[in-house]
Amino acid sequence: MKILKKPVLPIGFRAGGTSCCIKKSGKKDLALIYSDKIATAAGVFTTNKLQAAPVKVNKIYLSDNRAQAVIVNSGNANCMTKTRGFRDAIKMTSVVAKNLKIKTKNVLVASTGIIGKPLPMDKIKKGIPELVKKTKRSGISDAASAIMTTDRNPKSIALKIMIDSKAVTICGIAKGAGMIYPNMATMLSFITTDAAIAASALKKALKVAVYNSFNCITVDGCMSTNDMVLIMANGYAQNRKINATDKAFDRFSKAINYVCLELAKKIIYDAEGATKFIQIKVKGAKISQDAKKAAFAVANSNLLKTAVFGENRNLGRIYSALGQTGININENRIKVSTTSFKNKNIKITINLNMGKSESTVYTSDLSTGYVRINARYN
Amino acid sequence: MKILKKPVLPIGFRAGGTSCCIKKSGKKDLALIYSDKIATAAGVFTTNKLQAAPVKVNKIYLSDNRAQAVIVNSGNANCMTKTRGFRDAIKMTSVVAKNLKIKTKNVLVASTGIIGKPLPMDKIKKGIPELVKKTKRSGISDAASAIMTTDRNPKSIALKIMIDSKAVTICGIAKGAGMIYPNMATMLSFITTDAAIAASALKKALKVAVYNSFNCITVDGCMSTNDMVLIMANGYAQNRKINATDKAFDRFSKAINYVCLELAKKIIYDAEGATKFIQIKVKGAKISQDAKKAAFAVANSNLLKTAVFGENRNLGRIYSALGQTGININENRIKVSTTSFKNKNIKITINLNMGKSESTVYTSDLSTGYVRINARYN
Repeated sequence: MKILKKPVLPIGFRAGGTSCCIKKSGKKDLALIYSDKIATAAGVFTTNKLQAAPVKVNKIYLSDNRAQAVIVNSGNANCMTKTRGFRDAIKMTSVVAKNLKIKTKNVLVASTGIIGKPLPMDKIKKGIPELVKKTKRSGISDAASAIMTTDRNPKSIALKIMIDSKAVTICGIAKGAGMIYPNMATMLSFITTDAAIAASALKKALKVAVYNSFNCITVDGCMSTNDMVLIMANGYAQNRKINATDKAFDRFSKAINYVCLELAKKIIYDAEGATKFIQIKVKGAKISQDAKKAAFAVANSNLLKTAVFGENRNLGRIYSALGQTGININENRIKVSTTSFKNKNIKITINLNMGKSESTVYTSDLSTGYVRINARYN
Repeated sequence: MKILKKPVLPIGFRAGGTSCCIKKSGKKDLALIYSDKIATAAGVFTTNKLQAAPVKVNKIYLSDNRAQAVIVNSGNANCMTKTRGFRDAIKMTSVVAKNLKIKTKNVLVASTGIIGKPLPMDKIKKGIPELVKKTKRSGISDAASAIMTTDRNPKSIALKIMIDSKAVTICGIAKGAGMIYPNMATMLSFITTDAAIAASALKKALKVAVYNSFNCITVDGCMSTNDMVLIMANGYAQNRKINATDKAFDRFSKAINYVCLELAKKIIYDAEGATKFIQIKVKGAKISQDAKKAAFAVANSNLLKTAVFGENRNLGRIYSALGQTGININENRIKVSTTSFKNKNIKITINLNMGKSESTVYTSDLSTGYVRINARYN
């Protein structure tokens, strides 16, 4: 596995980003990624009961496990926008399809930003033809910038693996800094690869990777209505088609895991107002659900997160959070060790000494900066 | 029901507060309330799996539904202190018993403050005789001050009701400003009354009142290990002993409800860093559990709480929190109305339009002040 220094799109993919003035700041707010030919595709979506229109549209479009493009706008989530929102999301895909001369059903769509306001469709319809003109082989960084909301930095990663002596490239981008608390999926992430892979194998690889990465992070315990991770594999690498039972699948799956985990960590490094990156590892749980529940209870404790911000090693707040979960624990067995809270990277290891299951989650501190950003955001 | 202007202890109770230097600030940190004769008593305790030593001791002592005194220290929670903590909690009760010449088993105990450090027993043992000397009929305000930690203000209330043409007084004090998220009980509260009442009726009245008051508030979604509400009824009012089936029970129960709800609201008004008092009412839920779950999901949303701090009426954050609960909702039916976020008191009413159940909870905003207080606290 070779991590590339700069994000590079796999063979046959193009991308771009532009501003169509959804954001008042004039920053980029419209992104497109597409493949020269139809790709095998899969998606994982938020489990929030209120799902944004683009989430609903993609679930329908992905029933054939195929896609060729993803159009994304930032600055507006197209959520709680009822029938109009659904129509707008479909309109975005049809305008892209027309401009790329491909099928509407093969264009996926994502939105991120404020909830409850209708999309400014005039701006988006005008923006799409300009965006299509700007897309290029080297355009993934522009796309990574155009999907940002409160993110301070664009998030991308690319790597190469060898499959059947063919070089396979995997490239992923993501956005997310607040309203981050996954349950199946979180935030937006778009992954492209030129691997040839069966739809069922692609789905499996993505699902496992998301469970071990995006589903292991939290910024504020708040789950978005728009979360999705999409992957497109166009087969240009010309490897023998990977099936879920192949040896090559493990290598591919490991690479997707790596891409997702790196992007997930980048989200935490860039969390709203974050001054610290915190890894919380719970060991010795009776069952793995207990380990994850305990780790998230600690990771979502406002009291622990403010203590970390204050570089104040307050272990009582860890105990209190553990007890609140209701899981099987014994106060005489719990061992907590941490690196110094003065570090930028903090590791907290909790051994429940009740069994052999473990889980690691990642979070940030809760700072005055987080409050200021979210007091203002609209 | 007559609300008294100043907190007054019921007949036969005395109280006091002093400093024994657990707090570095030199502020009061030791409180005592006691009855001239043995009272009928009941308690409601935290459901946090890690329970502080005083919680464990009281559960044992209260098996006979009787108590005569409560000793409370602030500045140290005596939690995660293992066998030593348990011994220390019992020692506190035996020293009080010796000084008051009453039975150890009739002295209840509570602690609040930092978790995981042993109690400074030398200071407490020296403080108790001084405290006993200071207790007096007018000492409840001193006690209310001595149980404070990050509270800005002492919290107390007293009222009179007539039962069998006898005046019955009820007086309650409470502390709590952070780590507030109830599940059966939250924070510390001590209620005294001179009513004559059967133990089973007293238990029932307290349980119902706690469910409707302290269990309807949240500051930060963090549940304490030390939460308890204790009530002592010494019978000096000389009313006919109240049983749970009497008409007088309803009146008594209503008064206890009022006392608990007023104290619960005072905790929210005084929440760490709070600049706003927020009432969240969820109506039209299919079942009452859904209503309470929805109301708490909104009340515990860091994103909504920072939006309120910023006086930024962001309804998307309410929708997102509702969807995250997983309860039965329909986005086309939800109606949200709010008073202006510029007010100090904010009412948010959410009608799910799915049924007839409702629930009201109270919370505060999440401010830069909350972060600063909890970054420093140790």
